[in-house]
Amino acid sequence: MAERFVSRRNLEFLLYEVHRVERLSAQPYFSDHSRETYDLVLDTAMKIARDLMYPHLQEMDQKAPVLENGQVKVHPAIKGIMKEWGEGGWIAASMPYEVGGQQLPTAVATACNYVFAAANFSSTGFPLLTAGAAHLILSYGSDDLKETYAPRMLAGEWQGTMALTEPQAGSSLSDIVTRAEPTDGGYYRIRGQKIFISAGDHDAAGNIVHMMLAKIKGGPPGAKGISLFLVPKNRIKSDGMLEPNDVTVATVYHKLGYRGCPITQLSMGENDDCRGYLVGEPHKGLSYMFQMMNEARLAVGMQAASIASAAYYAALEYAKERPQGRKISSKDPLQPQIPIIEHADVRRMLLFQRGVVEGSLSLILQCCTYSDLSRTEDVEQSQRYALLLDLLTPVAKSYPSESGILAVSQGLQILGGYGYCQEFPLEQYYRDIRIHAIHEGTTGIQALDLLGRKVVMKNGQAMRLFLEEVGAVVQEAAQDSELSPYAERLKGALDTLGQVTMRQVQFALQGDVETFLADATLYLELFSIVTIAWQWLAQGIVARKALDAGCSPLDAQFYQGKIHAMRYFFHYEGPKTAGLAARLMEADGLTVNMTAAAFDD
Amino acid sequence: MAERFVSRRNLEFLLYEVHRVERLSAQPYFSDHSRETYDLVLDTAMKIARDLMYPHLQEMDQKAPVLENGQVKVHPAIKGIMKEWGEGGWIAASMPYEVGGQQLPTAVATACNYVFAAANFSSTGFPLLTAGAAHLILSYGSDDLKETYAPRMLAGEWQGTMALTEPQAGSSLSDIVTRAEPTDGGYYRIRGQKIFISAGDHDAAGNIVHMMLAKIKGGPPGAKGISLFLVPKNRIKSDGMLEPNDVTVATVYHKLGYRGCPITQLSMGENDDCRGYLVGEPHKGLSYMFQMMNEARLAVGMQAASIASAAYYAALEYAKERPQGRKISSKDPLQPQIPIIEHADVRRMLLFQRGVVEGSLSLILQCCTYSDLSRTEDVEQSQRYALLLDLLTPVAKSYPSESGILAVSQGLQILGGYGYCQEFPLEQYYRDIRIHAIHEGTTGIQALDLLGRKVVMKNGQAMRLFLEEVGAVVQEAAQDSELSPYAERLKGALDTLGQVTMRQVQFALQGDVETFLADATLYLELFSIVTIAWQWLAQGIVARKALDAGCSPLDAQFYQGKIHAMRYFFHYEGPKTAGLAARLMEADGLTVNMTAAAFDD
Repeated sequence: MAERFVSRRNLEFLLYEVHRVERLSAQPYFSDHSRETYDLVLDTAMKIARDLMYPHLQEMDQKAPVLENGQVKVHPAIKGIMKEWGEGGWIAASMPYEVGGQQLPTAVATACNYVFAAANFSSTGFPLLTAGAAHLILSYGSDDLKETYAPRMLAGEWQGTMALTEPQAGSSLSDIVTRAEPTDGGYYRIRGQKIFISAGDHDAAGNIVHMMLAKIKGGPPGAKGISLFLVPKNRIKSDGMLEPNDVTVATVYHKLGYRGCPITQLSMGENDDCRGYLVGEPHKGLSYMFQMMNEARLAVGMQAASIASAAYYAALEYAKERPQGRKISSKDPLQPQIPIIEHADVRRMLLFQRGVVEGSLSLILQCCTYSDLSRTEDVEQSQRYALLLDLLTPVAKSYPSESGILAVSQGLQILGGYGYCQEFPLEQYYRDIRIHAIHEGTTGIQALDLLGRKVVMKNGQAMRLFLEEVGAVVQEAAQDSELSPYAERLKGALDTLGQVTMRQVQFALQGDVETFLADATLYLELFSIVTIAWQWLAQGIVARKALDAGCSPLDAQFYQGKIHAMRYFFHYEGPKTAGLAARLMEADGLTVNMTAAAFDD
Repeated sequence: MAERFVSRRNLEFLLYEVHRVERLSAQPYFSDHSRETYDLVLDTAMKIARDLMYPHLQEMDQKAPVLENGQVKVHPAIKGIMKEWGEGGWIAASMPYEVGGQQLPTAVATACNYVFAAANFSSTGFPLLTAGAAHLILSYGSDDLKETYAPRMLAGEWQGTMALTEPQAGSSLSDIVTRAEPTDGGYYRIRGQKIFISAGDHDAAGNIVHMMLAKIKGGPPGAKGISLFLVPKNRIKSDGMLEPNDVTVATVYHKLGYRGCPITQLSMGENDDCRGYLVGEPHKGLSYMFQMMNEARLAVGMQAASIASAAYYAALEYAKERPQGRKISSKDPLQPQIPIIEHADVRRMLLFQRGVVEGSLSLILQCCTYSDLSRTEDVEQSQRYALLLDLLTPVAKSYPSESGILAVSQGLQILGGYGYCQEFPLEQYYRDIRIHAIHEGTTGIQALDLLGRKVVMKNGQAMRLFLEEVGAVVQEAAQDSELSPYAERLKGALDTLGQVTMRQVQFALQGDVETFLADATLYLELFSIVTIAWQWLAQGIVARKALDAGCSPLDAQFYQGKIHAMRYFFHYEGPKTAGLAARLMEADGLTVNMTAAAFDD
């Protein structure tokens, strides 16, 4: 196994130097905290990750969950991990003191989750879903639901889930058919099927609390008739004891990766005895659920980046240690072989991994910082940050997921035949990371969200704010002679993005929404490269300043490395915008103006 | 399981209409054959693939080979498959009559192998390696070796392998240390280790015949001291019986995919009793082995394309049947959902798969046709085709492998969560295809071969011939009003490729070989897109002519589909050349002028 899965130095660089989380302490919510707290929290996270989570990485993959007598059995380590996350306050880390939270900035909590996920991604599904579900209850649930469910979930005793998808309605939530029938007993009678429910059942939790979308009889059709229910696996009797709530596990899926966490198919109300408790008002469920979905989307991006991080360090370690071949300029077979990190092509692959990993993490922490900044009492500022977060969520979900697949694949490639074998962790990372472009909204769905909703919302206000944010970094970088060529490149890419956006939006204004969104996935890719280039330039600025100000030789090496990685991103990833923009400017409806028969023969 | 894994119609289109294999009958070697033979052969291949190979696809993946008491046990179906390939004449398909071959064009034999590999890739490793090994013996072995080994290999009774890689020498063959010590007994004593030997041992063959590289004591260092040996698992006693030859299986690797075929680590001479028989002259082994390596490289490209084909048809079937969502322009939830093939983004993903699959297959058949044409007695023509084949082999190996990974991934994506689960074959294809960018020379090695060797060989003669070949298609397409814009695009890309090539070669001429080859992998990618665009334009020409000449409605639909897929390739894949060329023209040595310390922190 590899020695490392994250860089502590890089986490500190991004948190303190690039995104300056210490400034958050100016806000009342975070005022108790300082870098001292954050360092301590990171220390503890690193220790838990290394001692409690990483050792089970491979075994949890090899011993996947099984369904036995209607109960899903998971790896025994999960119980201890959930307990630690609960008792250590990790599940409630960014929640308010009054519910037992720590009021940590999301940025810091997410950095810790990143460390955990890099050590053992599958195991983080359990507590992260629980955190999201508890937060949803605390935001919209009745006092009774809050008091009954949230504490046990935040303590890591009960599992929370997100129960949206149905067999006939995958990405199309408006087509769900799970029914909720009102009763006189203060609950609804639930009947339906849910598929692909992560951590939907397992024996490491005393109860499973499903946050479930369903339709109340007689409500409006489509998305407007969706309500949110809390549906427990075991409901609570008047004496406080649990009894089964007619939720059955139909299947535990056998999957490519993510094998430590069970994904289940659930059946509710087979005996007409499944009770659901309405959360919030009827028919408003989807808008509530978006809170959990958006949190989950950021979490997915974070998890994808974390797997790519583990793969990067595993490949880096191998590349430093593996002797193979010689410099092209000195092929004398009598000379010893050199470590493969000396080959330009291997460096290119490592730099690609690094570009993706550190660019993604920076973007995720940027989003978290926006989220934290939006807690300000200045309404205008708060809206500004909320809009930026909204706009960038599909990017922060999909770029790490899509590019992470490629980055892990390059890591595997560096190991050659060994990368394909189970004695190294790369093949597992390759399987694990593939889920992220699918769950919590596929990349295609994220693309529609970005271009079809976020870019155009409020007459493009979020987009304008984004251009401002990137523009500020461009301007700052332009002052530095070493960075100014990159500032120019980013400015060029930003202009291109602006033109491409106008071109697409034109179709929307003309009412041709099919052409408008036909290449939304390419638009997302273009948008993402610009976004990550922005994050790299921001890192470059900090590194240049630190070098100018003078620092230790070790730090100087780190900052030089950062600048080199930034240069890689601009020279190798940046040029990809040209092809994407060229295609997007064509906007000829090639995939719209055709029939499915073109695929027949 | 999916209904189809290849398109028979497309195979016929490429063989007869695009690459016109019937013209080969003008050559004495192929003069017995006609379309009638080829159709019959294809019929039989389709039947064997469907009845004998496809049914075991999943089980061979799930029940991977195991090492028991020093013997690798494979799925029992392998024995029947090897028998059928032997008795049916598939192993010797393109070999001369005098060794029991069928003298089929390589193009036709490869089309059949493609059908087999699309049905069950892992199972084709066994006979294809056997064919390559037997061909090597027949080309360079003594009469005794030929008579003793080749017939039983071509009959599918004995397995052939390719034993090159060693623990300390993966891609660096000059560093192999397996020793061959001459004896008086007409054999060499072999001692050493070989890793990653496909089909290196198994119980479905009566013997294993390793074509092994080793160094004879006292020979020159490096690649110039490599000799080729035939090292059987069991050697033949004077009475004709077999006895163990001191070849031990140290490991059978547990791998991501390709699980039907064992990859083994072998140890020779642990008891100082391993006999190897020299093939050809001492120290010339590497040049002999290149015959098998080049055949294997084309086979790898073919196998990658075949897996991508199976994934494409599985995704296509799903996309036609799966209802989900509605047109963006008509979101009424009361209307029924539409099959996902109606969504532009899904069509884009299908067209990408098709672009890769049919573009790759066309290139592979192009290479095979060059190989077949090089059998002509016209020396100049023969050299021309041999050079073209040489130049394009790294492209035909790596484009299907690299783009195939992406194509299968898009297929998996089309199935969403189901793509990630074992009940559909996509996740297996995703694992299986990942080997191809690694074995038989990684993509990085292919790139060095293309730019560092093939492009510059004979003062660029092969490259000039390639430009001629592509230029001829451009010229023909320019005559057709519908194709002329694409002819122009290809011409532009070809010019760009020429400029980029000049720019890289300049460094070689200046003696800076490190910078010359630093971005060879990107050069390979650029070269590949141009090459596949050429193959698509050639297909477009045929389709346009057929439509002009008039054809049945069913054929018209097929040809229209071809033209649409061609347009996809030009509009979506073609533009990627812009970014690649921009980067390659920079040639700033970013990965050369750095130290490994830049990765430290």
